[in-house]
Amino acid sequence: MLLQIIYLIAISAEAMTGALSAGRRRMDLFGVVIIACVTALGGGSLRDIVLGHYPLGWVRHPEYLGYTIGAAIAATFLAKKLHYLRRTFLWLDALGLIAFTLIGCAVAREAGHQPAIVVIAGMLTGAFGGVLRDVLCNEIPLVFQRELYAVISLLTGVAYLLLLRMGVAENLSVLLCLGGGFALRLLAIRYEWEMPKFVYQ
Amino acid sequence: MLLQIIYLIAISAEAMTGALSAGRRRMDLFGVVIIACVTALGGGSLRDIVLGHYPLGWVRHPEYLGYTIGAAIAATFLAKKLHYLRRTFLWLDALGLIAFTLIGCAVAREAGHQPAIVVIAGMLTGAFGGVLRDVLCNEIPLVFQRELYAVISLLTGVAYLLLLRMGVAENLSVLLCLGGGFALRLLAIRYEWEMPKFVYQ
Amino acid sequence: MLLQIIYLIAISAEAMTGALSAGRRRMDLFGVVIIACVTALGGGSLRDIVLGHYPLGWVRHPEYLGYTIGAAIAATFLAKKLHYLRRTFLWLDALGLIAFTLIGCAVAREAGHQPAIVVIAGMLTGAFGGVLRDVLCNEIPLVFQRELYAVISLLTGVAYLLLLRMGVAENLSVLLCLGGGFALRLLAIRYEWEMPKFVYQ
Repeated sequence: MLLQIIYLIAISAEAMTGALSAGRRRMDLFGVVIIACVTALGGGSLRDIVLGHYPLGWVRHPEYLGYTIGAAIAATFLAKKLHYLRRTFLWLDALGLIAFTLIGCAVAREAGHQPAIVVIAGMLTGAFGGVLRDVLCNEIPLVFQRELYAVISLLTGVAYLLLLRMGVAENLSVLLCLGGGFALRLLAIRYEWEMPKFVYQ
Repeated sequence: MLLQIIYLIAISAEAMTGALSAGRRRMDLFGVVIIACVTALGGGSLRDIVLGHYPLGWVRHPEYLGYTIGAAIAATFLAKKLHYLRRTFLWLDALGLIAFTLIGCAVAREAGHQPAIVVIAGMLTGAFGGVLRDVLCNEIPLVFQRELYAVISLLTGVAYLLLLRMGVAENLSVLLCLGGGFALRLLAIRYEWEMPKFVYQ
Repeated sequence: MLLQIIYLIAISAEAMTGALSAGRRRMDLFGVVIIACVTALGGGSLRDIVLGHYPLGWVRHPEYLGYTIGAAIAATFLAKKLHYLRRTFLWLDALGLIAFTLIGCAVAREAGHQPAIVVIAGMLTGAFGGVLRDVLCNEIPLVFQRELYAVISLLTGVAYLLLLRMGVAENLSVLLCLGGGFALRLLAIRYEWEMPKFVYQ
């Protein structure tokens, strides 16, 4: 389906952003590939481990690893040109955030979890690949400090559940959330919307 | 029961210490909430994942997330006043350490694990929320460098198992360990007891 | 069997390298023991959690914890003399890398996983104890930046599967891979073979 195709685009895009992150830390090709896989597949893996939902996606479908490894290696060759594609990347990353979120919600819903857990499963899938990437790159996770990102994932999950509860069809709910979440993320980037910061000495 | 009430106090107190930690790293409200949840619920989650004990506590009881999120947000408002409550916090944190430890031991014991694993499950529950918090805040875990903390968790677990083996009733064992472990932790803070440091160049 | 004996030598050696790492960060005895356990047993634990393969090795055999804790404490006493044993350590670490890899592959194979997952399970077992150690010591994992290490683990896993598919007996395959992987690692150290680095600003 639509979500599946967007998922494959999204893991490739996330793998590329992970590879560039690794390159900024002067990692070797092995490190680049691992960071790319963790960025693209780590959020979903964390969700499945937390929910006890086995086997993990990439264990059942090792071809996902193929896409992320391929995208990571491609990124190292294209790195200089990717600079000009920065905007494209932000768009793909935004699309990936929302697609990952909706997939994560759907997985938790099918496993029969409560609404709060469904929303959290979506957020873990959407935003925590980047958290794991930053931990491995020895940085404070960007997601905890930057403009609205994980919060959009949470809002998308809540909207998705509300639409389903209102009787809207699954496919239409996915499309509406995909459009709405994506638009919200682009607006957050454009106008640099941020969560209030908490500074404590 | 008693342990359950102490548990709820403890996760709220741990969530607040986590939130203050996040504030020291200038995180936004989302980061604050995540670090608070990881500090309060991460140790128990790690224990359950290591033991394959599903569903995790907060997945079955999403209201625990409500308490920690509420406590974290309260901490951001009360931050300046919390400074005057520093001693109260150290006490609540000490109570939490011991309560988490005993709950972790009880969970592993009911699952039929060997004594060494029961003691480790207690220590993971008691001390590793803080380890995960420090990893996400990009620091060397305090627990590995500070005055006696995790070791008191280990000793409490050992005492708990010994009391049970000596035929002492479950409730009495919990009370004795709670009192003893709490007193030991306060003494460790008061007299700055430390483990010997290992320094290697 | 042979692999079992080598495994016990390897976890002791890995525990000692973990303890020295902790000593370089001025950790206390508790931190030393935890870092040693994570270095020696963390790779296998991560593999089992990712594959949903419970109970974890050391949960079933708590005596493994005894060996690693004993080795870690011994390392703190012998630290000054261990310096003269540096070469011995590199050899034991190389042996451990290959033994961990083969054990990890065997575990995943017996669980019926696909070839790509078997090879990855070997690499997680062989190389990710060190990754977890570096994350807890607040460093960018060495494995992502240093001379050939995890890649040798991957190659060993691939060779192991190829030999089995060619009909070579299990024991002979293990011995051949053990010898070949070990030699390859020593050559990589000797001639400082490295993966190409990807540097991106």
